[in-house]
Amino acid sequence: MTQDVEKVSLVGAGPGDPDLLTVKAQRLVREAHVLLHDDLVPAVILALATARCEIANVGKRCGSKGITQAEINERMVEAARRGLRVVRLHGGDPAVFGRLGEEIDALEAAGIPFEIVPGVTAGSAAAASLGVSLTDRRKSSRVIIVSGHRATKAAPFAATDWKEVAREDATLVVYMPGNNFMRLREELLGAGLSPETPAVMVSHATMPAEQRAAATLATIHLLPHMDSPAVLLLGRSLDCRQRKQDARLAWKEAELILSSL
Amino acid sequence: MTQDVEKVSLVGAGPGDPDLLTVKAQRLVREAHVLLHDDLVPAVILALATARCEIANVGKRCGSKGITQAEINERMVEAARRGLRVVRLHGGDPAVFGRLGEEIDALEAAGIPFEIVPGVTAGSAAAASLGVSLTDRRKSSRVIIVSGHRATKAAPFAATDWKEVAREDATLVVYMPGNNFMRLREELLGAGLSPETPAVMVSHATMPAEQRAAATLATIHLLPHMDSPAVLLLGRSLDCRQRKQDARLAWKEAELILSSL
Repeated sequence: MTQDVEKVSLVGAGPGDPDLLTVKAQRLVREAHVLLHDDLVPAVILALATARCEIANVGKRCGSKGITQAEINERMVEAARRGLRVVRLHGGDPAVFGRLGEEIDALEAAGIPFEIVPGVTAGSAAAASLGVSLTDRRKSSRVIIVSGHRATKAAPFAATDWKEVAREDATLVVYMPGNNFMRLREELLGAGLSPETPAVMVSHATMPAEQRAAATLATIHLLPHMDSPAVLLLGRSLDCRQRKQDARLAWKEAELILSSL
Repeated sequence: MTQDVEKVSLVGAGPGDPDLLTVKAQRLVREAHVLLHDDLVPAVILALATARCEIANVGKRCGSKGITQAEINERMVEAARRGLRVVRLHGGDPAVFGRLGEEIDALEAAGIPFEIVPGVTAGSAAAASLGVSLTDRRKSSRVIIVSGHRATKAAPFAATDWKEVAREDATLVVYMPGNNFMRLREELLGAGLSPETPAVMVSHATMPAEQRAAATLATIHLLPHMDSPAVLLLGRSLDCRQRKQDARLAWKEAELILSSL
């Protein structure tokens, strides 16, 4: 049996624009026999697969019957053992807030060879779309990537965490930011971060449905709700107020809430 | 003159493997009239440009006459004004430890339109190559991206910084890590981080010349010197000791120094 086992590809689909797939990811999707994808991977990328490819949405949010991680793992293993080319397609980069670790463990435990194909992560895509850098030797010497998702659960991602990331010289990138920034605001302000610190939320970065809203730390609780995938960026390297005042940065449409308090 | 000005593309080349270029980056390189690239962009990617394309290494480390950022900016502006398609090709993602902010400012000041094309950043590539995730809901809830470069200068990136990033539930990704990890070791240990915390250095991730060396925080000062581009990963999500012991992770060759103290 072993000689028939096919390697599983754990692939980053990037932010959504098919032009931002890697060359390798594009090829793997085209050659896949089985494509197991996150909710966040858009139809325009899935359309690259052949008509014979078995495509399944294994996203956690995907209504109806809610597939478990164990079921996803089992499905990958089973298809690989049948000699099928399996592509597990994660939104963004698979190593950032996917369930990649659990998938690796399952494949290793089952003795299935695998490869990881990195992708463009949502924070990079959002910055590119905004026309800003995440680091800047004049303003930001680090990038801190956190998930807002856990903050909404009775999970370890608690109060003190926001204080710890309160640094004037860091760019904070919050994945799955949710919509309640009251605690984030209080704690970052309480830790001494400037109320003028620019903040921007970007939804569907790089896609036609892209939306953005800008604020400052002082007004961050006024940011509107946005669809997933969304990312919240906060830090001096965004510098959006100044850019807006300078009228140098072309903000799309009027989704802009400028620090008005 | 204005109608002839061409948009400048500030493009991420990814980690080095041409297969890990985005589809868009590949196309832009092929169509470029002028290609201004970092040292870290390999020849195999530059070879995608046409024979007529003017290619210049504008990397800071590139010996001989050392081009300044102002000269790079000037060159982009001048070529765009001549109606040429300029691609400024950064290693990895342009928003992470490039000079993207300064280039944006220069283009905006000159009234030259531009676009940013995000790329796969070195940390994602190194994790993919190692077969690990950067986050893991069981082990790591955040990724902290810092540059080791500034640590070697009389710059703000000072002693306290390592203490601040000492978190059991974070993955630390150090770009341009250099080769002296004594202070990092002392401070992270001093801040209470486990001496068993896995650490891995990866050089030329995803390229044929890729090298890796594994250690723990306790043995991190024994990591060998490695060529740029290199990245140092540290955190429980790497879990390489356990993986090594379990003989589940296929480490290439014998560059492995395992926690031997």
